[in-house]
Parts: sequence; C-alpha cells; structure tokens
Amino acid sequence: KTSFNIAVLPGDGIGPEVVNESIKILNAIGEVFNYTFEFTYGLMGAEAIFKTGNPLPDETLQICKESDAVLFGAIGDPSFDHNPDAKVRPEQGLLKLRKELGLFANIRPLKTYSSLIDKSPLKKEIIEGADIQIFRELVSGIYFGEKFTDDEAGYAYDVCKYNRDEIAPIVHMAFQEAQKRRKKLTLIDKANVLDTSRLWRKVCKEIAREYPDVELDFMFVDNAAMQLILNPKQFDVIVTENMFGDIISDEASVIGGSIGLLPSASIGNENALFEPIHGSYPQAKGKGIANPVASVLSTAMMLDYLGLGQAAEKLRQSVEYTIENKYVTVDLNADQHYSTSEVGSFIADYI
Amino acid sequence: KTSFNIAVLPGDGIGPEVVNESIKILNAIGEVFNYTFEFTYGLMGAEAIFKTGNPLPDETLQICKESDAVLFGAIGDPSFDHNPDAKVRPEQGLLKLRKELGLFANIRPLKTYSSLIDKSPLKKEIIEGADIQIFRELVSGIYFGEKFTDDEAGYAYDVCKYNRDEIAPIVHMAFQEAQKRRKKLTLIDKANVLDTSRLWRKVCKEIAREYPDVELDFMFVDNAAMQLILNPKQFDVIVTENMFGDIISDEASVIGGSIGLLPSASIGNENALFEPIHGSYPQAKGKGIANPVASVLSTAMMLDYLGLGQAAEKLRQSVEYTIENKYVTVDLNADQHYSTSEVGSFIADYI
Ligand SMILES: CC(C)[C@H](C(=O)O)[C@@H](O)C(=O)O
Ligand SMILES: CC(C)[C@H](C(=O)O)[C@@H](O)C(=O)O
Repeated sequence: KTSFNIAVLPGDGIGPEVVNESIKILNAIGEVFNYTFEFTYGLMGAEAIFKTGNPLPDETLQICKESDAVLFGAIGDPSFDHNPDAKVRPEQGLLKLRKELGLFANIRPLKTYSSLIDKSPLKKEIIEGADIQIFRELVSGIYFGEKFTDDEAGYAYDVCKYNRDEIAPIVHMAFQEAQKRRKKLTLIDKANVLDTSRLWRKVCKEIAREYPDVELDFMFVDNAAMQLILNPKQFDVIVTENMFGDIISDEASVIGGSIGLLPSASIGNENALFEPIHGSYPQAKGKGIANPVASVLSTAMMLDYLGLGQAAEKLRQSVEYTIENKYVTVDLNADQHYSTSEVGSFIADYI
Repeated sequence: KTSFNIAVLPGDGIGPEVVNESIKILNAIGEVFNYTFEFTYGLMGAEAIFKTGNPLPDETLQICKESDAVLFGAIGDPSFDHNPDAKVRPEQGLLKLRKELGLFANIRPLKTYSSLIDKSPLKKEIIEGADIQIFRELVSGIYFGEKFTDDEAGYAYDVCKYNRDEIAPIVHMAFQEAQKRRKKLTLIDKANVLDTSRLWRKVCKEIAREYPDVELDFMFVDNAAMQLILNPKQFDVIVTENMFGDIISDEASVIGGSIGLLPSASIGNENALFEPIHGSYPQAKGKGIANPVASVLSTAMMLDYLGLGQAAEKLRQSVEYTIENKYVTVDLNADQHYSTSEVGSFIADYI
C-alpha cells in the first residue's frame, strides 16, 4: 500500500499551526518515498462547538472512521476552562472520539535530548538518559463508568470499572514493547486499596507467563509519583489504567524539560490517532511561535503505524538534525530562534 | 488542661525507633512547661497481624478513642508488599483507624530547608522558598466506596462517592488555613471528567463566599502533577479528594529533598493522629539510622492541636537548631552523622 487517507483534525489554539507543519512534512515524505497522502479535514473541539454546537460533529467522526490514521492537533479554549459547568465542552468531543474509534492504548515515549537537558526542572544527573514508554488505557475506567449527581440530596458518584477484556489488550502491547526495549514492565496501580487494581495485577501476572523474558513489577501510584522524580531511569515500559495514566504521564512529560517535543499515539484495533502531548496553548495561537516538533514526531509514530518504518526513521533523523543544529523555536532557544513554519520547512527540506 | 493522654502506636519498621524519640522529647517538654503526658501503647499494622491476626485490634482502637491524641509511627512490612492478595493486610488497619476515628483531614505542610536544598531532585531556583500546605480528604471517596469483584465474569469496580457533608468540613479548614498564610487556595480535581469533582467545585465556590479575602482557584489533577514540578512556588494551600491527595501529596513530598523531615496530621472532630510522612522503611529497621525529625515535627503539630502552641514553637526551634548545626542522621549528611537516638537527645537537650 502506498496511498493513505489521513483524517486531519487541527482543533483549537496552536493545533492548526503545528498540524500544518506535519502536513508539509508528509508531503515531502510522499515525494521522496513515493507515497500518496490524501488529507480530509474535520472540525473538532471548541472550534467545532462555535461552528456547529457539537464538539465532535458526526461528519468528523465519519471522516476518522474511514481514514487510515487521524492526525490531531489539540483542543481546549479559555472560554471553557473557566467554566467547567458548561454543558457542551471540547473535552467531550475528545472522549467520544476515543470511545467511538476504540482507541484503547495511549502511548507516550519519553526521551531526553542531551542538548536540551538543562531545560529540565530536575537536576541533570537525575534525568539524563531516562527513556520511558508509557501505555495508558484510554477507553474504560472511571472516565467511562457510570456517573451520577443528585443535586438536591447533594451527592455524586463516579464508577471505576474494568473487565479482563479491557485490560488484556493493552497489557499485551506493553509486554511486546518491553521485549523490544530493556525488557522491564511496571504496572502502576493502587492494589492495596482498589478492587480494579487487584484485577489489573491478576491479569498482568497471567499474561506475564507468555513473556518470560520480560521482568514484570508493580508499583503503587503514590510511590510512582515520587519515583518518577527521584529516579526516572529505573523505568522502562509502564502500563496503567486510565485515570492514573492521565496523572502519571503528564507528570512524566515535564521531567525531561521538553514537553514541546513529546508525541503520542492512541491506538485501537481499527483506528489510530496521533497528537502532540502539549495542549492547545491558546496564549500562543496565531503568533507563529509554537514548536511543531511534538506534532512532527507524532507524525513519525503515524508512519510507523502505517508500516512506513523507513520514512519514520528518516523523519526522526531530520528532527534530531534540526535540534542539534539549533533550528528551533523560541521555547528551546530564546536568543536565536525560528518560527513554527520555518522549523517545519527545515525538517521538510532535510528530508 | 495540663495533663494529656497520648495513644502511642509505634507500628512497623522504623516506626518504633522514631516514635521513641518523640516520646523522649515530649517528656522534656513536660518538664520544662509543666505538662504531664501519659502514654498508652497499642499494637498496629504488620506487628499487630503477627501477634493477634488483626491489623487493628479492638483494644488499640479503644486506646485511640480515649486519647487526647494519637502518636503514630508507620506501618508496612515487605512480607505483605510482595503479596497484595493477602486477605489481612497492614493497610486495612490504617484505613479502618482513619474511618473509625473520623479523621477526615490529612494535613501536610511542605517546607524547604535552605541548608538541605541541594538534596532536592529539582533545581535550586525552582524549589527554593516553596511553602505548601496540602489538605487531603481522608475518609471518603474511592477508598471507602463500594467495591466489587466478580472473579468468574472477570470484572471489578470501585465507586468514588462524595456528598456535601464529606466535602465542606475540610474545605472550611483549608480556607481558614489560607487566611493565616498567603490567602490562596487551590482545589485540585478532574472536573472536566468526574461528577464528584464537579460537586467539589460547587461546594468550594459556595464556601468561598465566607472567605472573601482568600483567592480560590481550580486546577486539573494532571496539570497539577506537572505544575508541582515546574513551579511549586505558585501554590499556597491545596485541598483535594482522597485519591488525588494520595498521589499529589506524595509527589509534593519529594520535591523538597527532605522527606525524612516531613510531618503530617490527620484531624477529625473528636480525634487526631500524627505521623511522619515517610513509611516504615524496613531496610533501616533496628539500625539506629532512621531520621526522627519527621516524627518529632509531627509531635509539634500534635502540641499545636492540644493547644500547646508555645511548646510547639519551642520544639520547632529546637529542630531547626539541630539541623542548622548539622546534628543530623546519615540521610542528611553522609560525612558526619549521628544516630536516631542521638539526634532525638540533641533536640530534647536543647529544649
Ligand atoms: C482533556 C482531558 C479529558 C484529557 C484526559 O484527561 O484524558 C487530557 O487530559 C488528556 O490526557 O488527553
Ligand atoms: C497505605 C495506604 C493505604 C495509604 C493511603 O493510600 O492512604 C498511604 O499511601 C498513605 O498515604 O497514608
């Protein structure tokens, strides 16, 4: 297969700007490697609410379902952040999209760049060389369990529920990734308190028998929140449930000092979505200062997913080249810096 | 009142050693200030399981209920950590004790010590001067909600439930503390996903009207996990629900580099318990190397609670004096160090 349908959801804030650079680069890759990428745009997030009243219009969902992969920017707008009671919210679109596409595994590789290590809030000796891959379950747990509020009686609840079939697939993925890496998998849970965590442990232990070369260990989430800061190098692959993954992966994303560089992939059985970890960063919108690298590296993950490993490799090399040669945006070098689109063009040219 | 009944639960690991120093110091305070402290000991944790089969024997609970305050060491033993399926576990004792005593607010003050700032995993300029007080709800939420496992069908759930009466008291305490400090309160929640979080926000907003001098803001828990590392100085007082509090307060406890110094108080309407934040640290058990300062500073919080503010102040001064003069355990100074009991005696002598 050499021709691919890519659904493009630029979303809010700096989303459109960084996604633009990814498309520029995909076109360069298409030329060099003789692939055809067809882009179909869809509305999503605050943008979609303003235009259609719906954070995930049916048409957008349809475009995504028919695509080979989804390239996603970011969602979120200040007008909603200050108003969590709003009935219709950008996040709902994202949660619905994950569920509808069955994107059960959110994958975040965290690497440190030696040229950027001084940007980290952590001391160099603690963070240098850390290399972690986080697998977060994305379509179950307390996010999608029953929710209820009784305003008059003044109570509310949220149910965190998991069954084996929601746990096993992502655990297999994490084990397989660990096999390709340093062969260590850590399940982060709260098995000393939660029944769902005990189920996660049980399923992990059973599946571990199929991966005898991988060392499986367990860490309580409170301890993990400490260990990520005290000694991030102890981790190789991490797997965890939805809510703990939300917290732990965001914590992990800042310890390297380069959140503007971090990509993510959300994978399902039939669909996949690729997005930078950084949010919509509304303050920077339209200024041409956003760092496109996280979106570009998400695109590299997409190429891998599409089976275009060689192109993905080339793209990663190009990114490293531009960073090592300081063709970077203002967040990485206040003295000498380039615009979003200049950095995107550097990378495209290198390809 | 000048005479006090103190329930003492030394617990496991280094618990007994550090609690011993607190008692030594309370005796010194009793002499200087003319107070009488009567100590009644109770079994708790792994220790209690080994001796009675029960992590919280009824007798211990009774001793605590009849006390003016509970001095607690730590619980946890490696034989349980590696076996989360054990039917009887030390943690159950702690959770039951919190519930039975109605200890709804867990309070953790986090301060940095300038003489220890280089112990922090964070860079000096990020952490120096940070001063945060965390209020974690301790007897409700997903810890105490309905739990269920169906082994055959292969699913499990945990319910996170809150009602107004479980939220309001700790929110009032946090606002009152903020009034005495820098007048800023941050609620950490996940109101973009959870019904219970939206209830927390609602209750906080209502109560805020009674504290017009305090600025209330809201932060999503994933963002908070990042902000604690990127810019801990932005926080004054934090209030949050049980599970988020477990994760966030442990994360916060390591950024200052001095977890061996951090105290905590768990307060209810009729009872209160004081314990160091560090755990049972079984590897150090019986070696005389444990740092007693966290337990001693927990004792200072106890003195405050008992209305003995002057004695508490004196105790805090003594601790600062010993730290500034490097009368410290090996964790704080590898070159020149003193034993657990020597450090306790230094502090007692200074008083
Ligand atoms: C926007 C929000 C609902 C979402 C989540 O909590 O999953 C975000 O924080 C993320 O991690 O992608
Ligand atoms: C031991 C465990 C049940 C407990 C908790 O999660 O509350 C501990 O982590 C704590 O924070 O005191």
